[in-house]
Amino acid sequence: MVPVISIVGKSGSGKTTLLEKVIKELVKKGYSVGILKHDAHGFEIDHEGKDSWRHKKAGAMTVALSSPEKFAVIKDVKKEWVPERIIYSYLSDADVVITEGFKTYWFPKIEVLRKAHSTKPVCAGHKELLAYATDVKIKTKLPLFDINDYKGIARFIEKEIIKKHDKKEISLMVNGKPIVLKPFIENFIKDSVLGMIGSLKDCSDANEIELRIRKK
Amino acid sequence: MVPVISIVGKSGSGKTTLLEKVIKELVKKGYSVGILKHDAHGFEIDHEGKDSWRHKKAGAMTVALSSPEKFAVIKDVKKEWVPERIIYSYLSDADVVITEGFKTYWFPKIEVLRKAHSTKPVCAGHKELLAYATDVKIKTKLPLFDINDYKGIARFIEKEIIKKHDKKEISLMVNGKPIVLKPFIENFIKDSVLGMIGSLKDCSDANEIELRIRKK
Repeated sequence: MVPVISIVGKSGSGKTTLLEKVIKELVKKGYSVGILKHDAHGFEIDHEGKDSWRHKKAGAMTVALSSPEKFAVIKDVKKEWVPERIIYSYLSDADVVITEGFKTYWFPKIEVLRKAHSTKPVCAGHKELLAYATDVKIKTKLPLFDINDYKGIARFIEKEIIKKHDKKEISLMVNGKPIVLKPFIENFIKDSVLGMIGSLKDCSDANEIELRIRKK
Repeated sequence: MVPVISIVGKSGSGKTTLLEKVIKELVKKGYSVGILKHDAHGFEIDHEGKDSWRHKKAGAMTVALSSPEKFAVIKDVKKEWVPERIIYSYLSDADVVITEGFKTYWFPKIEVLRKAHSTKPVCAGHKELLAYATDVKIKTKLPLFDINDYKGIARFIEKEIIKKHDKKEISLMVNGKPIVLKPFIENFIKDSVLGMIGSLKDCSDANEIELRIRKK
């Protein structure tokens, strides 16, 4: 999977503003960034009255819009997808994925804590917590970044998350759940599938393969 | 791939309104519907000032939002994705995908033609054209539906597109292009991959497999 870091903290702590600056900084460094934001209360993204809004309203499960510069997809789900599944399916072509929220997941985390808002960390003690971005004096052995030090935080993400990540050549999802493979198995599956696909007509230069099987 | 039908016709011919009613009718019949709309001139979907809008503006390549009921993805592309790729990646879990636009593609088509707007079909003679929805008297051997006969059109889509479609158990994309497989090859790849994956820990009940390989 792609490297993932979560920016966590209470609502109103300033995650979005910090993230905005960190994105700019990472993009400036040449990285492509994917963002996944959790919104427990739902969100409105489409504009009322627009075609896509009308089609969604009419009952379409998924509405996609495609243009030469971008595309967008809005999809109903019966049950919230785990973040790994969204990342696997839709964000894995980024150099790094930053999530806003998802503090209960296993992703490495940076907690944002702003004095004017709260002085009590929500992830203190979490083993995935890597650092704080804060204007509060916290007793911790973790790196403490000033809440406005987006350059330092971007450098930290680059060093600790992007560069340390061993980008796998293969990723696998079974019944909607990402599967972690041991190196030997990984190579075995990769070589077998590349061998099969590479021998097909027009597929000898296969660099990127996506295979989906759904049993009837 | 999932069965696909395109609703085509000049801009302003009434495609969106017809489609809205056809979606409702198909959903009433119990089908899940995916919509793909082509917008050559680009589109605005996000709301200015919202978090996702700010992150996209800051340079994120992809922004995804997740909630318990739905999720959304907005993604920049360097070159417009072919519709098959968007359908493969984002819409293949629907019972039927209806596209609005994409008249130059190989998808089967229904052309909408409204007298007050134009009397000249744009897809006349296309071998994929299956029917017209129109209030114009056209000389044609194809089925002619009244432009308001959304029930008839939904029935036609059900009969000619959904029920005639042989849903494959396997779909493959190589270097961003969907690959059509012969039945023997299809079974060979399917059985090999199911055999490999099914023997992994916790994967013996694998019904849905998604495998992605990206060569370094």
